[in-house]
Amino acid sequence: MILDNRLRAARDPTGETLSTGGRTRQAILARAVKIAAREGLAALTIGRLAKELEMSKSGLFAHFHSKEVLELATVEHAKQVFENAVLRPAQDGENGVARLWSLCDLWLSHIERSVFSGPYFFTGALFEYADRPGLVSDSIKRATQEWLSALRKAVEDGQTLRQLGRSARADQIASELNGRLIGAYCAYLLENRRSFREARAALRARLRDLATTAIPASAFESDGSWKRYAQKRTRDAPKDR
Amino acid sequence: MILDNRLRAARDPTGETLSTGGRTRQAILARAVKIAAREGLAALTIGRLAKELEMSKSGLFAHFHSKEVLELATVEHAKQVFENAVLRPAQDGENGVARLWSLCDLWLSHIERSVFSGPYFFTGALFEYADRPGLVSDSIKRATQEWLSALRKAVEDGQTLRQLGRSARADQIASELNGRLIGAYCAYLLENRRSFREARAALRARLRDLATTAIPASAFESDGSWKRYAQKRTRDAPKDR
Repeated sequence: MILDNRLRAARDPTGETLSTGGRTRQAILARAVKIAAREGLAALTIGRLAKELEMSKSGLFAHFHSKEVLELATVEHAKQVFENAVLRPAQDGENGVARLWSLCDLWLSHIERSVFSGPYFFTGALFEYADRPGLVSDSIKRATQEWLSALRKAVEDGQTLRQLGRSARADQIASELNGRLIGAYCAYLLENRRSFREARAALRARLRDLATTAIPASAFESDGSWKRYAQKRTRDAPKDR
Repeated sequence: MILDNRLRAARDPTGETLSTGGRTRQAILARAVKIAAREGLAALTIGRLAKELEMSKSGLFAHFHSKEVLELATVEHAKQVFENAVLRPAQDGENGVARLWSLCDLWLSHIERSVFSGPYFFTGALFEYADRPGLVSDSIKRATQEWLSALRKAVEDGQTLRQLGRSARADQIASELNGRLIGAYCAYLLENRRSFREARAALRARLRDLATTAIPASAFESDGSWKRYAQKRTRDAPKDR
């Protein structure tokens, strides 16, 4: 049975150990995110999901009660996937410009690594749901807000640390960077496979323009030079001892 | 009957005089675009359309034969709406930077004027359909390609006219500007109503950076200063006599 195999592979996106019921739910939601990521939330029906997972529709209804509850749970699951792929790993690095670069870099690489099986989350979802009332729309908007907040916070920290100038407002820079990422993704979807390499170069050039002299311009020359610069900073930082 | 009223208001997006059958088709497609713009193409069914227009489903089937044909016709109609609101009016102005600014300005104003009744076309549509095979996906991708081509062509013309420097590739600038517009729209959808004013200011600043000394920096100070500059150019241009 397909679901049994899926169950063995099921991992809670938060990394917690799950009961059998919890694992079943995670496996269902992983499949639901897969369908929606490729074809949109509208393509996600309890009937379709039941067929793909070889489960009974009544079994699925027991988990989700309605199409709206299923959609909500699917969006929440997709948010956790995004958090694990982009938001959390970016917190590991240094604050400020380093984190801002990590957020942009991880955003591009979550697409290159096909973390989602298609392009729908969250840009497609936002533009499909933004003008509708309801919990699903609210949850999708919150996902974009959380992403923009993470970018804005990194800019603010960079300004506080005097790595970034204060001539532009943090939320405007966040919105601009988000736009550049989505613009690169549009080009990528239209078969311009070099758009991400170019996007990284353009983002580094933009960060160099925004940066103060606290960060040497040479750090922005390539992905490699940025990494070397960040490692050197970590090495040279005062140790707690 | 609702359809009769719609019919009186029906205009062919290309401005041509239409037969009764043609007018019926235009009225149906105008409603179809309205539904899809708000809720996505997936929400568009022949049954729903028949109900909203108070027509019989069999009558609609006579026009469109299948859901796919209806979707294709709806996307084509939406493309004509976009062409009439953004692409064509931008051709009226001067070539080069003036046209590039017009394209961006008209793009933002087609949202401010609610030319579509919701945000789905074409960003939502692209991110929902890009990874699927089929004619609908191809048509949606072409719409974005045509838009990016118009931006790229305006940049190339600006470079040929020596209004814009040649340090960046035209298609990269087109992709960046497209991203900035979509980024501003994202912020707008999340209730930041000043995002379009800020987007226009940011776009003018970006064009000023890209421009050569052939265009005075003062032209980029505000929407008004740009208009005054463009009018003066038209007034001072050599007349054909």
